[in-house]
Amino acid sequence: MSSTLPSSLGETLRQLFGDRFSTAQVIREQHGRGESHHTPAIPDAVVFAQSTEEVAQIVRICAAQSVPVIAFGAGTSLEGHLTAVRGGVSIDLSRMSKISRVSAEDLDCTVEAGVTREQLNTHLRDMGLFFPIDPGANASIGGMAATRASGTNAVRYGTMRENVLSLTVVLPNGQIIRTGGRARKSSAGYDLTRLFVGSEGTLGIITEVTLRLYGIPETISAALCSFETVEQAVAAAIAVVQLGIPVARMELMDRGLIQAVNAYSSLSLKIEDTLAFEFHGSPASVREQIEMVAAIVEDNGGRDFEWANAPEDRNRLWKARHNAFYAVVSQRPNAKGWSSDVCVPVSELSGCIVMTRELLKTCSVPAAILGHVGDGNYHVVFAVDPDNRAELEEIAAINKKMVRYAISVGGTSTGEHGVGSGKIAYMREEHGDAVDLMAVIKNAIDPQNIMNPEKILPQ
Amino acid sequence: MSSTLPSSLGETLRQLFGDRFSTAQVIREQHGRGESHHTPAIPDAVVFAQSTEEVAQIVRICAAQSVPVIAFGAGTSLEGHLTAVRGGVSIDLSRMSKISRVSAEDLDCTVEAGVTREQLNTHLRDMGLFFPIDPGANASIGGMAATRASGTNAVRYGTMRENVLSLTVVLPNGQIIRTGGRARKSSAGYDLTRLFVGSEGTLGIITEVTLRLYGIPETISAALCSFETVEQAVAAAIAVVQLGIPVARMELMDRGLIQAVNAYSSLSLKIEDTLAFEFHGSPASVREQIEMVAAIVEDNGGRDFEWANAPEDRNRLWKARHNAFYAVVSQRPNAKGWSSDVCVPVSELSGCIVMTRELLKTCSVPAAILGHVGDGNYHVVFAVDPDNRAELEEIAAINKKMVRYAISVGGTSTGEHGVGSGKIAYMREEHGDAVDLMAVIKNAIDPQNIMNPEKILPQ
Repeated sequence: MSSTLPSSLGETLRQLFGDRFSTAQVIREQHGRGESHHTPAIPDAVVFAQSTEEVAQIVRICAAQSVPVIAFGAGTSLEGHLTAVRGGVSIDLSRMSKISRVSAEDLDCTVEAGVTREQLNTHLRDMGLFFPIDPGANASIGGMAATRASGTNAVRYGTMRENVLSLTVVLPNGQIIRTGGRARKSSAGYDLTRLFVGSEGTLGIITEVTLRLYGIPETISAALCSFETVEQAVAAAIAVVQLGIPVARMELMDRGLIQAVNAYSSLSLKIEDTLAFEFHGSPASVREQIEMVAAIVEDNGGRDFEWANAPEDRNRLWKARHNAFYAVVSQRPNAKGWSSDVCVPVSELSGCIVMTRELLKTCSVPAAILGHVGDGNYHVVFAVDPDNRAELEEIAAINKKMVRYAISVGGTSTGEHGVGSGKIAYMREEHGDAVDLMAVIKNAIDPQNIMNPEKILPQ
Repeated sequence: MSSTLPSSLGETLRQLFGDRFSTAQVIREQHGRGESHHTPAIPDAVVFAQSTEEVAQIVRICAAQSVPVIAFGAGTSLEGHLTAVRGGVSIDLSRMSKISRVSAEDLDCTVEAGVTREQLNTHLRDMGLFFPIDPGANASIGGMAATRASGTNAVRYGTMRENVLSLTVVLPNGQIIRTGGRARKSSAGYDLTRLFVGSEGTLGIITEVTLRLYGIPETISAALCSFETVEQAVAAAIAVVQLGIPVARMELMDRGLIQAVNAYSSLSLKIEDTLAFEFHGSPASVREQIEMVAAIVEDNGGRDFEWANAPEDRNRLWKARHNAFYAVVSQRPNAKGWSSDVCVPVSELSGCIVMTRELLKTCSVPAAILGHVGDGNYHVVFAVDPDNRAELEEIAAINKKMVRYAISVGGTSTGEHGVGSGKIAYMREEHGDAVDLMAVIKNAIDPQNIMNPEKILPQ
């Protein structure tokens, strides 16, 4: 596919950005997809931006000719956020990787959008600080803000919604604004920060993010335990939430996932439905949490409560969990991952997972259930052949049943992966007429519809 | 002042709502003001609504004739949110006081907008649950959502921003939407919930709120300690925050406030700069928190660490704190309260308070400093004669210095009271061009500008 960019626009960008402007096929292909099964749609060109001002300049140039712009961070999207469905320019922010400021006193920092989660935490470690939001993939902070990411630690620390204090955003007209501030709370006007968090590049491009940080806990402890049935595991998780025990992580991995993870990460975990916990706090508080959780696990038929207190054991466990997506996908040569993601009130979680388990019994491709069950959020990862239409339809049908069930019990079509193009079909079912209000906002802020078009909102 | 409502509109409303429609002077006067010094502006009429559908009906009728509508909850606003500066209809939601649903399993509930904080907590008590957000006044939940309220417990439990899951909102065209859902997290589209939280009735009228709830802690303990200087008290508070000790409340009351509170609530607290703490958790966790805080207090020159473990002592303490605003105001006959409210990064708090203290030395009216210092949020309450222009100008000048200082160090012009009309003048200074984006959103959602006009946004 050749570039259909207006030639004068390409020329302008080339003159301004030199070899940081590219129309090379391989570069464009890299930028037209995330990590999932969604059909790529490659942009006409890619610009590697190095500053907010450069992003603003590119947006102004594109806006003048109504050319779409799509922000690109680490490329770890799972719901088709990065596809250039109407062509246009992909703005790659990965070179905006400066950690501009860290305040240990105020427990906050400001980073450029291309900084990755792991880069930030490596930088913070020696200061005794960490940023807890952890979606598994080594995503960029800008991308995590744009998709309202969360992950394994959200049950204790919240999501990007709770942990972004302030943003620098380039609007569709090229104007640069700063939303929010460094105060922990504010009642000064509309919450623009929260409007851009989760807007997936459709209202503006996030170029800088101010985040809340946390002190590395004095004590960290992890544990694994297995259950005969997934229902027992979920029942134990729900009891932990309802008693308000402040676990830092509480992850469900079904036996299918354990198998995949053992093979991929050379582990020898027992092939059973498993809950993995992490506890943060003072020694006394961690001890207390563990005692309470152990009792709940036992009450719910759990067994083989096992510790992983040594940092290397703990790291191996969580690395395996982080690689779960890749582990499932690698079970099948040349497969792509399709990761469905719903979130429900915890009282509905067991019903949802049992229903999903039932659906998977007849599924023709490798699949596994995993989830941040403390939040009521779980995923099914399928290893699909993206060229096999029958398979894609089969999984789409399972996905639809899961999503509709979740919505019908007061839940959401996506707990953390975002809408992208993958969940657009469910937006009206989930939000009703509120979708029209979202469209009013989109149209007011981006009247030309150049910011990541055809994402989030149904046409 | 007589009503200037189009007579056909008044007639329509009277026919529909009977004696729940009023143009009586005394009723209108009650609805044209909050609890503070701001000059009242009375609405042309008041309607007491009993359902979301009724609110929608009133809004549609008003919208058809471009008549302003102003939502009214408990009337506890401090920044002039309720003034009908362009006349119009005040929609009183206080009769929408149904607690529609409580789920102990999911730790959430849905209430009508007129339910008050105290009503909700009374209802929840027997179920072992509570709603922690506590701005002092017995505000309505709808009003608390609309102003993004917080208060004494926010240091531990967050603000309305973090604790509202979902809203029912009547839009300026009379359409009813539901934002969000009951899942703890979602990445499904624009965060409309957070857009309406803090929008002060300028984008729509909140008629129903779904809230997060918490289990009543197993152990609750409170303590008071005094300091020779306010700087010492603030330094101790900052150390507590920086060490991540999960105190539930940490309130500064300066000696001026203690004097006022002693007189108003018949207490005999020592007349010194004071920190008041509350600790929530398991017995072991509370014990641990107390030990750590006591050590920090001692390190910072605090003394007379005193317990209030008996519920009646604790309740007396917090009731006195809740009445602080009224206590200061009552020091002077016929005075009104002017409560300024800023919030800064905690590292800047000491500088701000010292500066404020300096300003107060020459202040001609009774004034006291109090604050939710764990969040970097503090107030000065002045007892003013609202008819004395010189006094109002004097306090406006002090207020301006405080606000500008807060903004200059990365803080906000209002931590929790909202913008109303009182902080409009600082919106551009705080947000820069982001204010224009707020206006774009306001104009797109409320093109006739009928929803609580002349609030939040500078003209």
